[in-house]
Amino acid sequence: MNSTLILIQCRDKIGLVSQIAKVIVSYNLNIDAMHQYVDEGEFLFFARFECSGPATDSGIIRDELLKHLPEQAIVKVNPPSPKKLAILVTKEYHCLGDILTRNFFHNTDAEVCCVIGNHTDLKSFTERFSLPFYYIPHQERSKEDFESEILNTLSPHQPDYLVLAKFMQILSTDFVSRYPNRIINIHHSFLPAFAGGRPYHQAFVRGVKLIGATAHFVTESLDDGPIITQQTITIDHAYTVAEMVRAGQEVEKTVLNKAIGLVTGDKVFVSGNKTIVFE
Amino acid sequence: MNSTLILIQCRDKIGLVSQIAKVIVSYNLNIDAMHQYVDEGEFLFFARFECSGPATDSGIIRDELLKHLPEQAIVKVNPPSPKKLAILVTKEYHCLGDILTRNFFHNTDAEVCCVIGNHTDLKSFTERFSLPFYYIPHQERSKEDFESEILNTLSPHQPDYLVLAKFMQILSTDFVSRYPNRIINIHHSFLPAFAGGRPYHQAFVRGVKLIGATAHFVTESLDDGPIITQQTITIDHAYTVAEMVRAGQEVEKTVLNKAIGLVTGDKVFVSGNKTIVFE
Amino acid sequence: MNSTLILIQCRDKIGLVSQIAKVIVSYNLNIDAMHQYVDEGEFLFFARFECSGPATDSGIIRDELLKHLPEQAIVKVNPPSPKKLAILVTKEYHCLGDILTRNFFHNTDAEVCCVIGNHTDLKSFTERFSLPFYYIPHQERSKEDFESEILNTLSPHQPDYLVLAKFMQILSTDFVSRYPNRIINIHHSFLPAFAGGRPYHQAFVRGVKLIGATAHFVTESLDDGPIITQQTITIDHAYTVAEMVRAGQEVEKTVLNKAIGLVTGDKVFVSGNKTIVFE
Amino acid sequence: MNSTLILIQCRDKIGLVSQIAKVIVSYNLNIDAMHQYVDEGEFLFFARFECSGPATDSGIIRDELLKHLPEQAIVKVNPPSPKKLAILVTKEYHCLGDILTRNFFHNTDAEVCCVIGNHTDLKSFTERFSLPFYYIPHQERSKEDFESEILNTLSPHQPDYLVLAKFMQILSTDFVSRYPNRIINIHHSFLPAFAGGRPYHQAFVRGVKLIGATAHFVTESLDDGPIITQQTITIDHAYTVAEMVRAGQEVEKTVLNKAIGLVTGDKVFVSGNKTIVFE
Repeated sequence: MNSTLILIQCRDKIGLVSQIAKVIVSYNLNIDAMHQYVDEGEFLFFARFECSGPATDSGIIRDELLKHLPEQAIVKVNPPSPKKLAILVTKEYHCLGDILTRNFFHNTDAEVCCVIGNHTDLKSFTERFSLPFYYIPHQERSKEDFESEILNTLSPHQPDYLVLAKFMQILSTDFVSRYPNRIINIHHSFLPAFAGGRPYHQAFVRGVKLIGATAHFVTESLDDGPIITQQTITIDHAYTVAEMVRAGQEVEKTVLNKAIGLVTGDKVFVSGNKTIVFE
Repeated sequence: MNSTLILIQCRDKIGLVSQIAKVIVSYNLNIDAMHQYVDEGEFLFFARFECSGPATDSGIIRDELLKHLPEQAIVKVNPPSPKKLAILVTKEYHCLGDILTRNFFHNTDAEVCCVIGNHTDLKSFTERFSLPFYYIPHQERSKEDFESEILNTLSPHQPDYLVLAKFMQILSTDFVSRYPNRIINIHHSFLPAFAGGRPYHQAFVRGVKLIGATAHFVTESLDDGPIITQQTITIDHAYTVAEMVRAGQEVEKTVLNKAIGLVTGDKVFVSGNKTIVFE
Repeated sequence: MNSTLILIQCRDKIGLVSQIAKVIVSYNLNIDAMHQYVDEGEFLFFARFECSGPATDSGIIRDELLKHLPEQAIVKVNPPSPKKLAILVTKEYHCLGDILTRNFFHNTDAEVCCVIGNHTDLKSFTERFSLPFYYIPHQERSKEDFESEILNTLSPHQPDYLVLAKFMQILSTDFVSRYPNRIINIHHSFLPAFAGGRPYHQAFVRGVKLIGATAHFVTESLDDGPIITQQTITIDHAYTVAEMVRAGQEVEKTVLNKAIGLVTGDKVFVSGNKTIVFE
Repeated sequence: MNSTLILIQCRDKIGLVSQIAKVIVSYNLNIDAMHQYVDEGEFLFFARFECSGPATDSGIIRDELLKHLPEQAIVKVNPPSPKKLAILVTKEYHCLGDILTRNFFHNTDAEVCCVIGNHTDLKSFTERFSLPFYYIPHQERSKEDFESEILNTLSPHQPDYLVLAKFMQILSTDFVSRYPNRIINIHHSFLPAFAGGRPYHQAFVRGVKLIGATAHFVTESLDDGPIITQQTITIDHAYTVAEMVRAGQEVEKTVLNKAIGLVTGDKVFVSGNKTIVFE
């Protein structure tokens, strides 16, 4: 028995499920799990089918599905896995440590191809896992120059996704456009609260009773891209900013890992500025 | 545009989704949301379709679906709503208060037909909502006699579901068999921990850092029926039993309300001793 | 054995706990539970002592404590209880229902003296609990006139706190100044996210994966007063605005009840724009 | 300005806080944060004071406090830090990875002195962090012999605590008695539910809607020692046992890390079979 994963995104119309299911059954595949969603604002249909059955040619099924779907449908059958991840970091180790530990034990749908840091703090740690660490400083040079070196460094690795694992530099619109919906950021607040810099400091000043973290795709608009997942934890008046940071880092790690798992497991679609997540 | 809700439970086989969707589209219905699940241990298929389209005859769609499904399939098309609820209580008001407040404002898929109490503590409260309260004491009589009076009292109301809203009496197997998978209980612990009596006392003695509540269907086996939903909250060493009770009551109320909403919204299937919940 | 509750707020200095504890022991009281906190930014000391021992004269203990504390210390010994609450509502019933149910069974540190509504939707419900409902419309009159009628209506009841239980009118600075840190509002978002109007609509548009509620004291600055407690729940892409509202109302109810319990249980201090909550 | 941490555990009596605070102020120390708790069942008093002020001799303060406290009081002033941890593992990497990553960056109150495994699966990973890994197999030998080798291996490291980071062997009463309240275990369920083996399998069979993890001190009674902290997450009917394991491992990691932080931060007291945790 083989597994076949089918992902579909297209204009909505009546009878889509019926036609898709008919194609699936025609290849003798059983639907083990399916999720679908219609974004009624955008008139878009999204679906994910996990099937089992005889070995099949992904390309043939894909072509057959495209015949029965509205024009410009996007269909993926058995998309490549594992995904290749490039990790961008600055100084904080907690998210990177979590990612590299999993990677070492091959326990994900992803594999890390390299780590890029604009500081050297995480170089020794990365290299202990036998992974390349590229130090690309941002100081005393233009952003254009800085980003250009990153792009050149990434190029031979051909990553599927970039993960900003506490990368404290804002990427330009031009850079982001090279990896559309392929850059995952972890922001250390429950967006849209406390966007921008020093969110824990903002949270302390405001006297909130919750802190949190948000994983989102990066778009040209800072901290405003499609949210993949987010989580909060309870705090109280006695938390200093440093204690918020420490507690928050645990949430950041959890949320970023969750987001990476969802994205590399082909469970996330993007519709306008929102995500559809089929868990 | 009308809404059509279709619920299906049957033996699993290849192509079910395709055949069901074909029937649905043949009535010009659009699938707005669908959920399906295959219990691979039991070889059972469960599905729930929310459709929109022209007005249709529920009986005809149902018959057409049955033609294409395995024998003994259970199909419901536009099951009756709102559901009629009979509430059984003892002395604690918190769950009942929540249910009657919602009922007063008609803000649910359910309507309360009566309240039965084995004490009179909640009589005045119930009657303020212009609902019948039947006092049926359990003292100084046999359980058979007690339950027989409850059954007779319920009979003219023809409730769809019985809700044990902190009803502190154990029902006999015979009683339960009259309402199979139609009695919802709230147990004041996160089952299977602390089944049986005085769960908060047990929790205090064990020194746990969590307390919780579980809503489940009642079967002949005490506290052991299919779980619908459950939730925990964090406590610490400083909680007395009384404080656990007070904090726990909030969770009980939330969990019972959630369960009632799921069941009366036709979102819960039972498979063996488990529930399938399509949220 | 009697219980004695002591609340202290004053400038911080070395040896405060020692001096306070010395006074307490001099009256033969045992400290069963104590909480203290120093706001190092404001140089303020806050403490709450639950004591047991022989019956004592609250005024005498208070005077003795004041002798040993810095000038302008605020000391309360056995503050009056239950607190009197006036509830202000518009059309939504869920928070009011929760408050009136508890009130009916006297299960709190508070008692409701009246309900004021700028619509009549909740009049019948309130009166079923034998409580006065005052209909004070805001339409076709000045805010000054509207608020003046509210103040006059409240006056004979002498409430300790006003609870805005989904009261959809913004109160003037002048009104708020009559009840400093004595007006509790429930805002239907996790502030500071989605302050202002239609927070669930804002949340839908932004595509967040969490919604929440915040209870706070009302100050002259809208949605910006000291936060008492707040909570979030997880949602997903499939939630419509209406479903967010429904799920959110459960959280609003829980959060507002929590806040009322904390405030009327004398567990909340205000320091600048923050609360100190001794749970 | 120096920090002084004071921990006290003794029989309860009136005036303890006053006497302790008097000693503290006599050394010109300011109390920045204090927690106290009276276990009324056991008549025991527990307190933790974080103070700041001039440098002081810990031994002298300790002796002075003992003079004013009931006999057999346990007083610690500035207990040694960081604590030394020995980690015991079997095959699962997730808890160990989290611990060793933190350890590498020295971001805790603890430092890892060695890792002991009854399988070799985690040897290479551990050694990448330049830490000793001792392979001590349990097969084909008596438990006595197995444990004796562990004890001998630990001996030169003089660990303060043993952390069972998914160590799948049950330790004998004799072994446990060598490290009383100094062995921390992570159990992969919300105890007391699903004690013993294969808790996720048990959870699957029971059809629960929550899974969780519990960190506790190990006593001679399996899975029954004082609980330090525990947490649950929500699951649904669609989770296979493998998916529960995967989701559960994230919780296990979080809960174990929380427990280690609390214990090594001198925030946990043990009273009978319960913990008092001053967060």
